[in-house]
Amino acid sequence: MTPEDRFVDRLREAITGSDDLVVGPGDDAAVFRSEGLLVVTTDTLVERVDFLTGEDRARLGRRAMSVALSDLAAMGAWPAFALLTIGFPETSAEDLPLEIAVAAAGRAREFGAVLAGGDLTRADQTFVSVAVWGRPTGKPIRRTGAKAGDAVFLSGWPGEASAGLALARALAGLPRVASGTPWAPEELAAPDSTRLLAAYREPEPRLALGRALGSGGLATAAIDVSDGLGMDAARLARASAVRLVIESDSLPLSPALRSFAGVAGVDPVETALGGGDDYELLFSVSPAHAGRFADPPADWGVEVRRIGRVEPGDGVFLEGEEGLRPVGNRGFDHFGGPR
Amino acid sequence: MTPEDRFVDRLREAITGSDDLVVGPGDDAAVFRSEGLLVVTTDTLVERVDFLTGEDRARLGRRAMSVALSDLAAMGAWPAFALLTIGFPETSAEDLPLEIAVAAAGRAREFGAVLAGGDLTRADQTFVSVAVWGRPTGKPIRRTGAKAGDAVFLSGWPGEASAGLALARALAGLPRVASGTPWAPEELAAPDSTRLLAAYREPEPRLALGRALGSGGLATAAIDVSDGLGMDAARLARASAVRLVIESDSLPLSPALRSFAGVAGVDPVETALGGGDDYELLFSVSPAHAGRFADPPADWGVEVRRIGRVEPGDGVFLEGEEGLRPVGNRGFDHFGGPR
Repeated sequence: MTPEDRFVDRLREAITGSDDLVVGPGDDAAVFRSEGLLVVTTDTLVERVDFLTGEDRARLGRRAMSVALSDLAAMGAWPAFALLTIGFPETSAEDLPLEIAVAAAGRAREFGAVLAGGDLTRADQTFVSVAVWGRPTGKPIRRTGAKAGDAVFLSGWPGEASAGLALARALAGLPRVASGTPWAPEELAAPDSTRLLAAYREPEPRLALGRALGSGGLATAAIDVSDGLGMDAARLARASAVRLVIESDSLPLSPALRSFAGVAGVDPVETALGGGDDYELLFSVSPAHAGRFADPPADWGVEVRRIGRVEPGDGVFLEGEEGLRPVGNRGFDHFGGPR
Repeated sequence: MTPEDRFVDRLREAITGSDDLVVGPGDDAAVFRSEGLLVVTTDTLVERVDFLTGEDRARLGRRAMSVALSDLAAMGAWPAFALLTIGFPETSAEDLPLEIAVAAAGRAREFGAVLAGGDLTRADQTFVSVAVWGRPTGKPIRRTGAKAGDAVFLSGWPGEASAGLALARALAGLPRVASGTPWAPEELAAPDSTRLLAAYREPEPRLALGRALGSGGLATAAIDVSDGLGMDAARLARASAVRLVIESDSLPLSPALRSFAGVAGVDPVETALGGGDDYELLFSVSPAHAGRFADPPADWGVEVRRIGRVEPGDGVFLEGEEGLRPVGNRGFDHFGGPR
């Protein structure tokens, strides 16, 4: 038996199955039973691009699954099964992929989804790629349906994850980015540090919110904010052929983010608009449904706030005391954006 | 619009859709219509592990799709959709991922399958990961059903791809592996070189054969030979709890492989058993069906030969003039096997 075969054996012991999973890990392919529409997506975390060298393995596995699940949340879908690909250096410990896989499977299991299979490969840097399939809870929510007159809502606190990454980099002794002045992570109060690091390391896929939007037909369009609020807002605006106006006063800036911005000498608004890794949902709501968000139910698991409106036109604008200014393509582009 | 968004636009122009694809590339996730069983798998090619630096982009895209499709072939499934993940260095030309993606989509299209979406990411080395899913053409063929008394069949010519890789490495000026004596690629006749390089670079997923096996219920077990005939035979033997005996006289050694072995000073039998990247099907057939393979129909697209038999016991053995000898775990293990 090869180490790879041992891996599959140990993985099968560690994970659970499902009635719909006819063939699980360990064959050439998995076999799954399904009827109707399926929603499918894939996302990848790469060492030194999406996570820092030395990241805790279980946290990495959970995070890789969470960021893929976040895409399903944005479509109003609920996950059913996933495939996992792990690339890792030859020098890695044999249990590295197993720890990542067990954690990823456990994360999926929290939402009733199962790991159906995957692939292992050698690589110079560790990467974890997840493909996940799920079922729409209503009509799948696209990026294309926002209409002038809609309100724009956002879950969570944009920029916290980006601040958490800056903090994690500083704690790891890596060069500071996005700051002109030197600062030390110790300058930040411990509760703020903890909160920001968790926002980066342990993103929560907004599946319950997505299900509420999908099953209730509440959103006209939605997108998962992964590359920065500004950039993903621009994507939604472009797909829907509308203008998004973010009202500066309504942009939620958490106390922890404000503290970080003070310490690091950055503008919290810029961090909220340009930071990545939020994995929150940005969505548009018709006037008929906007009232439903005044007092969101606790089982959505996250704060949801109106941050702006949809207008005729194009692009994304921030509306402040001096009027409208274009937000542009702030954020992270996978062809080589800032980080 | 960011380069990534331009990529999606250009990709959408270059690929075709399908009636069952409700939402294609460019949203948070793809949506497709499905009934019954789905067979899903994923496979990844990594630069310097699975392909050489400087590999032609279109060939790389086609090959990445082919090796994933090969897993479906082994299950007796026909492909419907694929997701594509491309990691690439920041220094790459902007059209690198597009050329890979268009070629991969074109390859899928040859079998009626469509690219539903994917992901782009930065990475230090290029990698291409394909998740593909399809429908079983009969009962999905597993690795577990081989029975003592079954005959063992193999498609194609094992070892040719491995010889092709050695040749490609030599042509690229990389150090020779698997050879004690110095040799030059020019020592091999041009038709042999062409054939071996094609076996490595342009593998053909055996979907038509897999469909015949699946729809006809002809195979008791099957596996895609990707990591070397010896290692994948051992996997099938283990999954089925049987012994596989490969009859030395029946092992197909192509004239091109024999020529290569002569030039490179290697044993052609060892290359056939230990080489990877064949992407052929190894399968077991009950005595009742074995006669169907005496004269395989041309539309299977590949030679299929009986190479041995299934016995009670375990492991894989090569039967020659001196009796049985264990084949062991020859081949490529993703935890760091030989290459």
